[in-house]
Amino acid sequence: MPKVLIVYHSKTGNTRAMAEAVEEGVRSEGVDVVRKGVEEASLDDLLAPEGIIIGTPTYFAGATAEIKKLIDESIKHFRKLEGKVGAAFASSGDLGGGSETAILDILRAFLVHGMVVPGFTSGGHYGPVSVGSPDQERKEVCVAFGAKVAKLVKSLFGE
Amino acid sequence: MPKVLIVYHSKTGNTRAMAEAVEEGVRSEGVDVVRKGVEEASLDDLLAPEGIIIGTPTYFAGATAEIKKLIDESIKHFRKLEGKVGAAFASSGDLGGGSETAILDILRAFLVHGMVVPGFTSGGHYGPVSVGSPDQERKEVCVAFGAKVAKLVKSLFGE
Amino acid sequence: MPKVLIVYHSKTGNTRAMAEAVEEGVRSEGVDVVRKGVEEASLDDLLAPEGIIIGTPTYFAGATAEIKKLIDESIKHFRKLEGKVGAAFASSGDLGGGSETAILDILRAFLVHGMVVPGFTSGGHYGPVSVGSPDQERKEVCVAFGAKVAKLVKSLFGE
Amino acid sequence: MPKVLIVYHSKTGNTRAMAEAVEEGVRSEGVDVVRKGVEEASLDDLLAPEGIIIGTPTYFAGATAEIKKLIDESIKHFRKLEGKVGAAFASSGDLGGGSETAILDILRAFLVHGMVVPGFTSGGHYGPVSVGSPDQERKEVCVAFGAKVAKLVKSLFGE
Repeated sequence: MPKVLIVYHSKTGNTRAMAEAVEEGVRSEGVDVVRKGVEEASLDDLLAPEGIIIGTPTYFAGATAEIKKLIDESIKHFRKLEGKVGAAFASSGDLGGGSETAILDILRAFLVHGMVVPGFTSGGHYGPVSVGSPDQERKEVCVAFGAKVAKLVKSLFGE
Repeated sequence: MPKVLIVYHSKTGNTRAMAEAVEEGVRSEGVDVVRKGVEEASLDDLLAPEGIIIGTPTYFAGATAEIKKLIDESIKHFRKLEGKVGAAFASSGDLGGGSETAILDILRAFLVHGMVVPGFTSGGHYGPVSVGSPDQERKEVCVAFGAKVAKLVKSLFGE
Repeated sequence: MPKVLIVYHSKTGNTRAMAEAVEEGVRSEGVDVVRKGVEEASLDDLLAPEGIIIGTPTYFAGATAEIKKLIDESIKHFRKLEGKVGAAFASSGDLGGGSETAILDILRAFLVHGMVVPGFTSGGHYGPVSVGSPDQERKEVCVAFGAKVAKLVKSLFGE
Repeated sequence: MPKVLIVYHSKTGNTRAMAEAVEEGVRSEGVDVVRKGVEEASLDDLLAPEGIIIGTPTYFAGATAEIKKLIDESIKHFRKLEGKVGAAFASSGDLGGGSETAILDILRAFLVHGMVVPGFTSGGHYGPVSVGSPDQERKEVCVAFGAKVAKLVKSLFGE
């Protein structure tokens, strides 16, 4: 059974609430999932899962330094993540805006790793975005996102 | 047998030379391939293939207006391209620079279409880039790129 | 007295409504302004003004092909636009999303031209965005944006 | 007399060598300049200077986490940097590629701060890029870049 790792960075709880909904979506497809805050995720956590999903708040129109630190250090496993599925989501706070470029920051890193990145025809083309705390509709978007990523993982790595 | 469409825009012949090498790579994986200049490609050409590869010269750090026109008009087939594989490559000329953002312009459009986009650990992380006419080494990068895209198409859609 | 050119592309009227509000803002600073639809703007219109503002609908997370065509052809005046002020705004429609990257597409082209690009602490950091027709609040954002761009033009080129 | 702050992150010395050349360029215009490694720069260093230049290595097609940390924390001074001039440069190493998006990451943060960002018609449109250690030609590009940024600072803030 394929596995998905969800790593998120959350200061206010909004990104964590999104991560929980994404986890529910992945699990609904019968795919194993581990969800970790960025402070407890280790580099070696990136190796086993066939799918990696990263969630970030939007700081200055980008992913946070904490998420970027994980990405920078993932150079340790360069070429070992090739072919895995990568996806991302973002919350944004008072500042507003920039969530799409924050998600794209993470997707670009996945592409550098040679990973496979899906887009979405609804609910955020690059991945879900929530302004502030995700309401029920946003949570459903996150669940649907998690399910779609899990389906792609199954298509590529078997059930 | 899955099919791949290569659409390219070429004024000087550099992007066409890249497209020919990409075609060779796709074909080497036993995948059907059609290669068309952007001026002869129709919107309905986008429907049948399981993989779409677009090549562009770099104009002002972006894809050309001709390529963007095809992308804009592809709204006609919105949601019908979902799940297909998308990839892109770019040449750049005298102005230099901007090829990576030109490729990312195209990849973003593929993500909006809900397509699946692979990255690469070598030879241009987002897709091949050639400054001027592609030399033998660049052509080999294009061949390897075409083969990788074809492999992903086969993984997702069967041989 | 310095001059500002506003070029916009509008199919539904939303981007034109934004352009009119931006024009009002520029004019409020005592700066000359010419506003043209992209279909009536000529390349030589880019030469005289000290500030150039471009407005676009969001198509596939980017500026439209019509706007990109103007940008591509502006190569004719490469190095002649250096030091001018450049700014951009975008509307988005049913598809939702992508307006920030659409604005950034245009700003990148301005940077390639060696132009000077201001950011904004409120009302859209890269420039104003309107989902659908701009309401009164959005129009005020556009007016404030036009005024700020005009002020920068005056700082750099005198009153 | 206006002041420029140069903050750089350097592990191998390449970005520092670029920073030194940029400093020389700023100084050649009679503008005061302070150059600091990111580990010794404080948030309050951002307040006084009329121009801020940031240099970064390219990690996963973006600025490093250390640079992003400085940017994230600069929220402390949000709205206080408005109108200042911002510019950026990047080195890239073995991985190759991504330097333009790394520079754009920083420029986007400057735009969120309401700063003013110049582009360049030569030597890297968004700012200088060096693959590995900067050779004499690359150093001259950095000197010219520093001088141009200093000139814009003088245009906006007086000599």
